[in-house]
Amino acid sequence: MRILLTNDDGIYAPGLRALRKELQKLGEVVVVAPAAEQSAVGHSITLLMPLLVQEILDEGNQPLGWAVEGRPADCVKLALLELLPEPPDVIISGLNAGSNAGINVLYSGTVAAAIEGAFFRRTSIAVSLEYTKPKLDFPRAAALARGVIEQILAREPPTGTLFNVNIPSLYKGPIRGIRTVPQNIAPYVEKYDRRVDPRGRVYFWNSPVFACPEPHPDTDVTGLADGYITVTPLQFDLTQHALLRQMNDWKWDV
Amino acid sequence: MRILLTNDDGIYAPGLRALRKELQKLGEVVVVAPAAEQSAVGHSITLLMPLLVQEILDEGNQPLGWAVEGRPADCVKLALLELLPEPPDVIISGLNAGSNAGINVLYSGTVAAAIEGAFFRRTSIAVSLEYTKPKLDFPRAAALARGVIEQILAREPPTGTLFNVNIPSLYKGPIRGIRTVPQNIAPYVEKYDRRVDPRGRVYFWNSPVFACPEPHPDTDVTGLADGYITVTPLQFDLTQHALLRQMNDWKWDV
Repeated sequence: MRILLTNDDGIYAPGLRALRKELQKLGEVVVVAPAAEQSAVGHSITLLMPLLVQEILDEGNQPLGWAVEGRPADCVKLALLELLPEPPDVIISGLNAGSNAGINVLYSGTVAAAIEGAFFRRTSIAVSLEYTKPKLDFPRAAALARGVIEQILAREPPTGTLFNVNIPSLYKGPIRGIRTVPQNIAPYVEKYDRRVDPRGRVYFWNSPVFACPEPHPDTDVTGLADGYITVTPLQFDLTQHALLRQMNDWKWDV
Repeated sequence: MRILLTNDDGIYAPGLRALRKELQKLGEVVVVAPAAEQSAVGHSITLLMPLLVQEILDEGNQPLGWAVEGRPADCVKLALLELLPEPPDVIISGLNAGSNAGINVLYSGTVAAAIEGAFFRRTSIAVSLEYTKPKLDFPRAAALARGVIEQILAREPPTGTLFNVNIPSLYKGPIRGIRTVPQNIAPYVEKYDRRVDPRGRVYFWNSPVFACPEPHPDTDVTGLADGYITVTPLQFDLTQHALLRQMNDWKWDV
């Protein structure tokens, strides 16, 4: 099996390195990942700047893949269109430092890379690890991620199928199981910190307060909070089909 | 009616200015838009850098709103959480220079700003004008956009409803009507141009070739190509619900 591995934390991120080790048990892994951290870049792509690309070796002087001075979605495009000699059987994005559940799915560079893979009709899986202090146990989480990925692929999903996997922090107790759940779409609470610079200019810092006080039950957010690994099948058709059917009766004037 | 107007082409973009003039016929318009162009940034948000904010006056020395040194989605967050004295009745994003149909919906900063508005349960409408050389007729397109927006709002959609409107180039003939259609999800063809810099480093330019050779019929892409204004209701639940129902039978091992 040929596996393309990418992420949004950058090619030197420990989550990617831990997941690579696990995925090498399943097949041949090639990494094409951003040269630097790209969190919360969503589905940004680079149209107006050149994408510098550099071949990278791993700790054992073996080929790791390519570092791209661009976004996660750029990495997937370049991998499929230019860098890989053959198309991969599966695209894995992660292991992200921090969960990607609820509306964070739309902000996430990790998930965007997987969606980009699905644009090319490749089966793609985003994998994220819930953030906790003081540190994240990437090696153990990567082994769990590999187990979930193996089970998804054993079902032989149609090519282009897209999944979002979240692993709960391993510091809050034993994993309680794996649940297939929808994305939580309940609102988040967030805020900004307003400041004035020495020249009198106003600026705002996005505050780390970003919480979903009332998540919908049986979703990725609640499953993760309850200590389950969550698996959510995704799609990139944003059409609100129920409303579209109603709108077919609307009369319009130009 | 209180209207928040934003975009991804930046606060000085002619599309935004033309749309503001039209929207002022419907209510009080406040602009909160990026200080500089932000095309194809998708749903990026700014977490690790400060967001500088500056009040801007229009050509007549009247308050226009705020320029934000950030992404379109940052503008909507800041407007709703910090800048506007009262929440807007509707959020409009545009008028974008270039259509946002098919999978471009996911790359688009214009659409991301509207999705961000829907995260806050505000009715939000993204509006884009198909790109043509030598120039875009923003004033005429803005008048058409205002007509579509008026008709959408006259239906009193539940707060938080999200729409994506595309206006065909006005240089390819008269508008043939307005169609409500789903987002096209057929694959695109694209490529890169590989080059080597004077220091021997490899880089790639994203090529302007980006085409959908076989769009699905009766979608935003085909409607626009046929000369119709297209209206697509959107949502931000990326769950693939049909597959999720199948997956409920899957047995998992941790």
